[in-house]
Amino acid sequence: MAVQSQAQVGVTGLAVMGRNLARNFARHGYRVAVHNRTAARTTALVEEFGHEGEFRPARTPEEFVTSLERPRRIVIMVKAGGPTDAVIDELVPLLDAGDVVVDGGNAHFLDTRRREQALRAHGLHFVGSGISGGEQGALEGPSIMPGGTAESYRVLGPLLEDIAAKVDGAPCCTHIGPDGAGHFVKMVHNGIEYADMQLIAEAYDLLRHGAGRQPGEIAEIFRGWNDGRLESYLIGITAEVLAHTDAATGKPFVDVVLDQAEQKGTGRWTVQTALELGIPVSGIAEAVFARSLSGSAELRAAAHGLPGPTETWLDSAASDRFAEDVEQALYASKMVAYAQGFNQIQAGSAEYAWDIDLGATAAIWRGGCIIRARFLDRITAAYRADGRLPTLLTDEHFREALAGAQSSWRRVVTTAAQLGVPAPGFATALAYYDSLRAERLPASLVQGQRDYFGAHTYRRTDRVGTFHTLWGGDRSEEER
Amino acid sequence: MAVQSQAQVGVTGLAVMGRNLARNFARHGYRVAVHNRTAARTTALVEEFGHEGEFRPARTPEEFVTSLERPRRIVIMVKAGGPTDAVIDELVPLLDAGDVVVDGGNAHFLDTRRREQALRAHGLHFVGSGISGGEQGALEGPSIMPGGTAESYRVLGPLLEDIAAKVDGAPCCTHIGPDGAGHFVKMVHNGIEYADMQLIAEAYDLLRHGAGRQPGEIAEIFRGWNDGRLESYLIGITAEVLAHTDAATGKPFVDVVLDQAEQKGTGRWTVQTALELGIPVSGIAEAVFARSLSGSAELRAAAHGLPGPTETWLDSAASDRFAEDVEQALYASKMVAYAQGFNQIQAGSAEYAWDIDLGATAAIWRGGCIIRARFLDRITAAYRADGRLPTLLTDEHFREALAGAQSSWRRVVTTAAQLGVPAPGFATALAYYDSLRAERLPASLVQGQRDYFGAHTYRRTDRVGTFHTLWGGDRSEEER
Repeated sequence: MAVQSQAQVGVTGLAVMGRNLARNFARHGYRVAVHNRTAARTTALVEEFGHEGEFRPARTPEEFVTSLERPRRIVIMVKAGGPTDAVIDELVPLLDAGDVVVDGGNAHFLDTRRREQALRAHGLHFVGSGISGGEQGALEGPSIMPGGTAESYRVLGPLLEDIAAKVDGAPCCTHIGPDGAGHFVKMVHNGIEYADMQLIAEAYDLLRHGAGRQPGEIAEIFRGWNDGRLESYLIGITAEVLAHTDAATGKPFVDVVLDQAEQKGTGRWTVQTALELGIPVSGIAEAVFARSLSGSAELRAAAHGLPGPTETWLDSAASDRFAEDVEQALYASKMVAYAQGFNQIQAGSAEYAWDIDLGATAAIWRGGCIIRARFLDRITAAYRADGRLPTLLTDEHFREALAGAQSSWRRVVTTAAQLGVPAPGFATALAYYDSLRAERLPASLVQGQRDYFGAHTYRRTDRVGTFHTLWGGDRSEEER
Repeated sequence: MAVQSQAQVGVTGLAVMGRNLARNFARHGYRVAVHNRTAARTTALVEEFGHEGEFRPARTPEEFVTSLERPRRIVIMVKAGGPTDAVIDELVPLLDAGDVVVDGGNAHFLDTRRREQALRAHGLHFVGSGISGGEQGALEGPSIMPGGTAESYRVLGPLLEDIAAKVDGAPCCTHIGPDGAGHFVKMVHNGIEYADMQLIAEAYDLLRHGAGRQPGEIAEIFRGWNDGRLESYLIGITAEVLAHTDAATGKPFVDVVLDQAEQKGTGRWTVQTALELGIPVSGIAEAVFARSLSGSAELRAAAHGLPGPTETWLDSAASDRFAEDVEQALYASKMVAYAQGFNQIQAGSAEYAWDIDLGATAAIWRGGCIIRARFLDRITAAYRADGRLPTLLTDEHFREALAGAQSSWRRVVTTAAQLGVPAPGFATALAYYDSLRAERLPASLVQGQRDYFGAHTYRRTDRVGTFHTLWGGDRSEEER
């Protein structure tokens, strides 16, 4: 029967991410149509991995579309931007109402909103889907964050849930919300990933250049942390990287790598969007800035030798206690970074009417993705208990953890400042925490300054209304 | 003679900024055509201030344009965005090649680039000009940052220089560069203003809630600072605001103002643009975030009572020395904020081929604008000595100041963390400084992590090339 033999899902764009996703579908028993602009990749995929399942290679978009059962499920895995639009433009005339087109790349959520609207006019479902986990995740089970209509998820969701990572039997895939919601959440996921990596890097740097530990020793410390509440993929691979010795030189690997971090843009988008939404995501911002700064070779060369403190090492007694303080500071700072990120998702959801379930979002990050961590169980529980929690930090578990961590956290920030080891991530997280819990902030002074130089007016603590003081006159107050 | 009596410059949009700018031109002896969408404002201006000079009121755009000598000089002072475009669209058909149209509002520099290109096609010169100094500055002499063609500045510059603030006889106005350069520089000016205000607010907060000083005492401390190297408009008005007593309650004014700071958007634009350019402007970012956070009433209410340190005040001996430490920290952190802002201008200038003279930019901020300060003499001198300085911090004066300030600076950041008084601006400035001067940054670890989970590759310190370690395999290294 022809219909029976039609493919159930199609993947176009067979670079490593697309290829691995197609293999993942095939390994789960789906008949997978595969297509690539240049046919060589399609042929190579079938030759090399054809034994893993039922692939239906297509040489042309027409053949690709025809080989799929309806409603069609097509996953586009090409570069974000122009290439994605080009593929969409090519496919749309070939499709029928009700078909589902997925963009599995890292598109900007505003592009996804635009595309969703355009395809809706053709009766098509466009799904912008975050897929996290890198090459290995794509093959073995990523965390999947699809946005789009409820109908698109009815057609597509079961397949995505099948190929997603599983945690305690639950798939790391959920319907995030309409149009750009999936790519928005993936963007913030990546922003949090930046913050998490920066905090880990600072923890390493403090142990190395404050407490004088060697990379191998620090790898052991991280391994120990990975048995506790910090257990996570990133802590695990950090231990691996730190334990690795460069074969060519016999030196610690981390010492032969150029210390100029690169970035692809989702961290920057996260901060730019947070600014638009008015959400302070200082932990992510510092991480993005730290990468930029590290790559500013000319600037750093010029600044080398600027005066630093005379004391640059902890004494050995302090050094022994320090690792535990750093663990506490890392956990507390990480809480702040996640709290900020989740607040951004909350704000995006409100702005675009996406109605995102924060508990479900935290739950699908527990497996498959780069920031998967034991800690996300706690976040899931916090939002399941109260989906409208104003900040994670006030959840009972986190409040207790902060109470236990804060002395250590303050010692770490203090030590970094005293020794001249940069710890922008730890410092901004603590400042955010102290700002949040402050009874009064000096923002009242800022409002006074603004009223003085620009007549921008202010509000009062004791009366409703908007007021201006005649600073240039008799300094009486008038209501505006 | 009809030509003699034609107006030399026209201002359309007569809200307070436009009105004051028109009066400023008239007071300098220029014949000023004035126009407003609703004629009442035009009439009121002439009735109230007609004695100050030669105003030529116009009831219609046609009358307005006709009343001007050629090449016409027209300054638009209406709201940014749609209203600006509307006025431009109305004027363009009435103008002749060679006429100069100025947008004196706070437009986004990308809008200015778009408008400049559109008007160029009509043979018109479009000048996006930053004007800083608020209402009073507009009337008595603002700092003016015009962008546009060299020809536009030949026609317009002498008038702008006449009405600008003067410092040591030099006008606070210079031709910034082509198209969006003027509005870009004004945007960064405002971003720096945000950072400066935040640092001042933190200094106040630490003296108040760390050292236990009362607003009146702190006003005196600020007055003292204003006699030294921190001398500036913002320090001066801060002392005034802090010294002010609320008439209604008899309490310090700063205590009756609601501590939720507002913002209009140029600070946010600065950070978003810096992220685009890859320039770390953490001081400005923290200031923008601090305003957002202060305004998050629900979040703050929820977080109130989160655990803080047990020691929350300096003892009285430490408290006495503390004001001097704060002065040092404020000067050092301010240097960092300005260094970051000037690096952003440098990067914008390179990106858009504007060839901005940083020394001239610093010089025109010495008077008229909100951030005018003695300190800007030093920045002017630094860039005049070396226009391509990679960072202000390495200039001899600043390097020495940092050497003198850093112990105090570290004590202030340390004290803030210990006492639980939020000082995100001071903390990020110090972390930036320590990052910049670090011999090695933990960015090497970040590159290792990225290579581990995403095969993003890394560079080495000892060999040219791009490398990948086979983390999932035998961990050998291959060149990519």
